[in-house]
Amino acid sequence: MVKKFSAPRGTSDIFPGEARLWQELETRARLRLACYGYNEIRPPFFEETDLFVRSVGQTSDIVQKQMLHLLPQSRAQVADAPHPVLSLRPEGTASVVRAYIQNGMDKKESLSKLFYIGPMFRGERPQKGRLRQFHQIGVEAIGPDSCSPYLDAETIRLALQVLDDMEAGPYRLKLNTLGTVQDKENLSKSLRQRLTTSKKDLCADCQNRFDRNVFRVLDCKNKTCRQIVARLSMDDAHLEPSSRDYYQKVKSALKTLNIAFDEDPSMVRGLDYYTHTVFEICSSALGSQDALGAGGRYNNLVTQLGGPQADAVGFALGLERIMLARKEQEAAGVPPVDVFVISLDETSLASNFQLADILRARDMIVDMSFKTASVKSQMRIANKKGARLVVIAGEDEQRRGVVTLKNMRDGSQRQIARDACAREIKDLL
Amino acid sequence: MVKKFSAPRGTSDIFPGEARLWQELETRARLRLACYGYNEIRPPFFEETDLFVRSVGQTSDIVQKQMLHLLPQSRAQVADAPHPVLSLRPEGTASVVRAYIQNGMDKKESLSKLFYIGPMFRGERPQKGRLRQFHQIGVEAIGPDSCSPYLDAETIRLALQVLDDMEAGPYRLKLNTLGTVQDKENLSKSLRQRLTTSKKDLCADCQNRFDRNVFRVLDCKNKTCRQIVARLSMDDAHLEPSSRDYYQKVKSALKTLNIAFDEDPSMVRGLDYYTHTVFEICSSALGSQDALGAGGRYNNLVTQLGGPQADAVGFALGLERIMLARKEQEAAGVPPVDVFVISLDETSLASNFQLADILRARDMIVDMSFKTASVKSQMRIANKKGARLVVIAGEDEQRRGVVTLKNMRDGSQRQIARDACAREIKDLL
Repeated sequence: MVKKFSAPRGTSDIFPGEARLWQELETRARLRLACYGYNEIRPPFFEETDLFVRSVGQTSDIVQKQMLHLLPQSRAQVADAPHPVLSLRPEGTASVVRAYIQNGMDKKESLSKLFYIGPMFRGERPQKGRLRQFHQIGVEAIGPDSCSPYLDAETIRLALQVLDDMEAGPYRLKLNTLGTVQDKENLSKSLRQRLTTSKKDLCADCQNRFDRNVFRVLDCKNKTCRQIVARLSMDDAHLEPSSRDYYQKVKSALKTLNIAFDEDPSMVRGLDYYTHTVFEICSSALGSQDALGAGGRYNNLVTQLGGPQADAVGFALGLERIMLARKEQEAAGVPPVDVFVISLDETSLASNFQLADILRARDMIVDMSFKTASVKSQMRIANKKGARLVVIAGEDEQRRGVVTLKNMRDGSQRQIARDACAREIKDLL
Repeated sequence: MVKKFSAPRGTSDIFPGEARLWQELETRARLRLACYGYNEIRPPFFEETDLFVRSVGQTSDIVQKQMLHLLPQSRAQVADAPHPVLSLRPEGTASVVRAYIQNGMDKKESLSKLFYIGPMFRGERPQKGRLRQFHQIGVEAIGPDSCSPYLDAETIRLALQVLDDMEAGPYRLKLNTLGTVQDKENLSKSLRQRLTTSKKDLCADCQNRFDRNVFRVLDCKNKTCRQIVARLSMDDAHLEPSSRDYYQKVKSALKTLNIAFDEDPSMVRGLDYYTHTVFEICSSALGSQDALGAGGRYNNLVTQLGGPQADAVGFALGLERIMLARKEQEAAGVPPVDVFVISLDETSLASNFQLADILRARDMIVDMSFKTASVKSQMRIANKKGARLVVIAGEDEQRRGVVTLKNMRDGSQRQIARDACAREIKDLL
């Protein structure tokens, strides 16, 4: 018995019918992103491990538990480097910022609007809407002096527009602000104070996080931790007046575009790099994994990674989640064939092979049978492929320099001269 | 001093101007592939290591030297499994065949025509045209009883057409046949006999390969090995009459389509799974790494991987090589902006933000400045972005309910009513 292989745990194959829907949604997203002045960037799918540790954060769940690392290529390297050196990207922002810095893009333009579409990799326990290879559409607007509440609002508008274009609604926009790095530090201190008495009741992970990164307690999925967090009644006392003002302007700008949102003062997002505006878009059609996308501002990441002073804001949308949220997903299929060519014997197969080539040169979608099976069995294939026209040729047609053309819509059938048939067939489609 | 990160060795970022060219070439390829009845499949980017060992071949260079493996997620697994379990895909055929078998596609259609576009990963020494993450467009035509010389010729035709569409020419098609598994066995035996006397002069790798897989000696890049191979004067004595007949028919079918080719009887390709037709397409514009693509028939791989009896043929084209071979590569750039919006003060920024949104809703490519810098400095940005129209609004325009519209082609400038400007601007584009 030969071993049978399966797609690795937490991954899946996208087959033709579904792949066509992916193509269609990606095309719609590309058009919308272009309208907002975004251009595509394609960084590699793996990076130095340290890049993710430094950007996403040492204490984040992603870095602590979910990264997929590459095995160093030689045994010697494995012994020398007990820590992984290269990792598959768990999210897109770190790579884009790295590319922005490495390429000195701040010197080329004052605001770079970059988007990516592609796979991300996390070693999570697979469940519905959570895969080890999943796909995101993301944008990053990065530039010196680009900290504008209007840019934040534009970015949120774009995320919602792309979701609308993909028919992923209905959804709910959740909004919060983290303020500046100093504001975040104030919030950390106040959270530690307010959590001191309940610290012993937190889960083991959160007790660990308490000193290193108390924000992660707010994200914790543990039931007791969530109850403790719910009792905190978060407010904006940690924010400087200028941060409050910035947040107000973001909200006004969203209102001028008639964008509804719910404020959620305990939303901090699982990535360490955010400052000021953070947001999450949740689907009403999904269960516990309901986030279609999320994003926010990250004004300090570029300098933190050794780059120039540059502010930034971005988001990422999860394509698998969008697919789950769409209702008409099943409607997709592979495109029908324009012409299917049937040969009744070996001689006509040779000239039909040439004919298929001539038809394709006129941009028709043409398929043919390479066997000289019965007309009946070949017609079955043509039907399955949704062929609009069928060309049939055998010894008789061959001798008379014609082909039989069958119109599958009305079942009508007639013979036409082989030499001139390409144009005639094209006109019929 | 903060550490600066770079893209990992052997990978590169594709920046907007170049990414736009990639999009354009991928779109052309997709259209051509559709004409031949191919549909997209998207398998994951990593698979069980064993899948590649079993398909590409234990003694191949890819498996021996070039695979990039994933680090098992827990330390315990590292100790338990000294051999890697999961690897990034070094080529596309193995994954597609695995998905074909796992999904029982032979029961759904008699011939599955599948294509993929995406990254492959190999831990090679990086050089021009050889990256650790590189990209391929590949096709696989798989089905019970699909061993037809016409399908081989159609596949070659398609590969050349895609290259033509991508303006990757001029190129040269090299053709050979390996015959059946039995024919390959005969060839192995005869090669071992004829190489016995020179075995001691072969490189260390080839002495190893001599018993395990003597074909790899024919591929060896070592100078002495190549001289020994050149003296072999290969012929088709190992082929059964039916294999010779099959090869003849492939060549005749290519001739009916006026496709020129050179026969190369020592070409065996670096992958173990090929049977019958093999081909390679080499660019005249490239140096030592001159293969734009390659492919061939592999009638036994599906059963070898535990699947049903199904024949198959396919190819893969290297996108980086195609980019290198194209002459006009430099001509690409990012698309120009339709409208650039300039604000002269904070109040007009707020209403211009709304205006940009209205223009985008009419599918215009719109960008705006989020700072209220001088007109001069904002016009510089508009110029850099190739804006066709510029909308300027300040206090004065705001009060009078108008905007100033500047046509960048002729430099003309006039004021139009803000309320009705969207249609007027759209008409001007």
